[in-house]
Amino acid sequence: MESVVENTEKLQFQPPAYSHVLDLNGFLSPHENDSALLILNQKIMVTSVFKKLWRNYFLHICADGGANRLYEYFDNDEDRSSYIPDYIIGDLDSVRDDVLNFYIQKGVAIIRQTSQYATDFKKSIQLISLYFFSPAFHRITRSSGIDTNYGIEDCHGIHTLYHSERKVWVDRDVDLLVLNAIDGRFDQTIHSITQLYATARTDAYYRLCYLTTTDLIMLVPAGGALIKYSKEFKEACIKNCGLLPVGKPSVIRATQGLKWDVQNWPTSIISGKVSSSNRFVGETCCFFDVEDPMVLNIEIDMEKLSMFM
Amino acid sequence: MESVVENTEKLQFQPPAYSHVLDLNGFLSPHENDSALLILNQKIMVTSVFKKLWRNYFLHICADGGANRLYEYFDNDEDRSSYIPDYIIGDLDSVRDDVLNFYIQKGVAIIRQTSQYATDFKKSIQLISLYFFSPAFHRITRSSGIDTNYGIEDCHGIHTLYHSERKVWVDRDVDLLVLNAIDGRFDQTIHSITQLYATARTDAYYRLCYLTTTDLIMLVPAGGALIKYSKEFKEACIKNCGLLPVGKPSVIRATQGLKWDVQNWPTSIISGKVSSSNRFVGETCCFFDVEDPMVLNIEIDMEKLSMFM
Repeated sequence: MESVVENTEKLQFQPPAYSHVLDLNGFLSPHENDSALLILNQKIMVTSVFKKLWRNYFLHICADGGANRLYEYFDNDEDRSSYIPDYIIGDLDSVRDDVLNFYIQKGVAIIRQTSQYATDFKKSIQLISLYFFSPAFHRITRSSGIDTNYGIEDCHGIHTLYHSERKVWVDRDVDLLVLNAIDGRFDQTIHSITQLYATARTDAYYRLCYLTTTDLIMLVPAGGALIKYSKEFKEACIKNCGLLPVGKPSVIRATQGLKWDVQNWPTSIISGKVSSSNRFVGETCCFFDVEDPMVLNIEIDMEKLSMFM
Repeated sequence: MESVVENTEKLQFQPPAYSHVLDLNGFLSPHENDSALLILNQKIMVTSVFKKLWRNYFLHICADGGANRLYEYFDNDEDRSSYIPDYIIGDLDSVRDDVLNFYIQKGVAIIRQTSQYATDFKKSIQLISLYFFSPAFHRITRSSGIDTNYGIEDCHGIHTLYHSERKVWVDRDVDLLVLNAIDGRFDQTIHSITQLYATARTDAYYRLCYLTTTDLIMLVPAGGALIKYSKEFKEACIKNCGLLPVGKPSVIRATQGLKWDVQNWPTSIISGKVSSSNRFVGETCCFFDVEDPMVLNIEIDMEKLSMFM
């Protein structure tokens, strides 16, 4: 039966044994080689943490005009030269020529993919998968000169290679943090949400998170997830949260560790019954069990975030 | 059968006779008494058009901390005094004391509604409805001093009055433009989307539109809508658009006047099949026929917008 319980401000509980764990501190400081930072084409607004994020992530990708935004983040070439991405990928209709030339001179691999059947965001995700899992991708790109698009066919070579290689690789978890996915053109915000669902379905090895100036945004998969964080991080940085059935009406089966925990709670954007302005009271974790994948946003205090990176 | 047609850049066509018309120029310049501008609690970013918008709208409401944002928009009391809202409403846990006092001295009606069963956004919409349609609301507030919350019971008096009056009033169309509904905390963005659906269902007399720095966002109701605009406005200001099935999967039955017109096109955020990065080629109108209400975002060139106000 549907229920809501109001909890005390600090709650300790034994979380259920969950296979899907999302570690909020881990999103900020993965400190692992299997981690990638993806920059999409909007102004970089997370200025107080950007350089630390860059250093904490192993692989750095700019999606097309995202390269402009990285370039424009710095006001001189010396600073710029310390933050060189590994790849620039996309149809390259947005990246400026002078920006492209700057990064080419710095040895960045430019992978042009003109296909209009995938967005630059999707192309980037496939590239990151190939980078981490496909020896064939590295063989092909290593053996080619830069003039040949690194041996990748320039319409949908990444797409083709991804689908061919996907059959043989062995997954490991990869932390993927994306900047500038939300708060731009609204159809692009919604496209980013579709990518949360799509990536969970096709590439479940990603721990995918969007960082905005106000939120961490991620997907809670069907069956649920345990959200972990340090006590200090929660007290200093975590504010409100929402569990949002963006794609379809669904049911929140149970939550534990929220100020207002719910059970068997039907939720729908259409009907207007949506869990927003809730907050974490679990001291070091919360858990969410949902019938269908659902979008979780966790408000963060951007000013204090860098203390935990 | 599902189809997509690519059109030429300029398309003239005879639109079907549609009862639901959304006039984009009208959102910017309603020039009617039945129009309201609602300011929510986020920084006002539409700086190039804010003052013109204010002048073009008849009624001005701040939802709780929205009053702070109006206050902070100006850097001196003289300018501030030319932009005095009619009402400040909400639980008033966000508006600053000095701001509240400033506006009280200017004669603003402050309506405190402490109920936690409705958001400040929803309380504002009910207040606007009462303002335009309920003689009883005006009788009650006129006969009371300001110390008595204008005669409105301060927990959920607006809610109660709205539901009691709703039975007797006669609707007229009201233009309602909302600032700061999108691009803040993501659960608040989604809450704003729920308000699009809810308002269309309960208060269909509103022509409700959200203005962000990048988009006009509105709801296309089930059965469809005709979007009208001047040729000059389209050429100067309108860029990309998306028709977004936020909330549940649905079908776009037909579009006319888009670069890529579709028919019988299933769409879903979960499956990832969403019409984004499309654009208007209809010279003075486009039309959308949808099976369920769907969110439409229209990218606008903010720099040129003020030419059309």
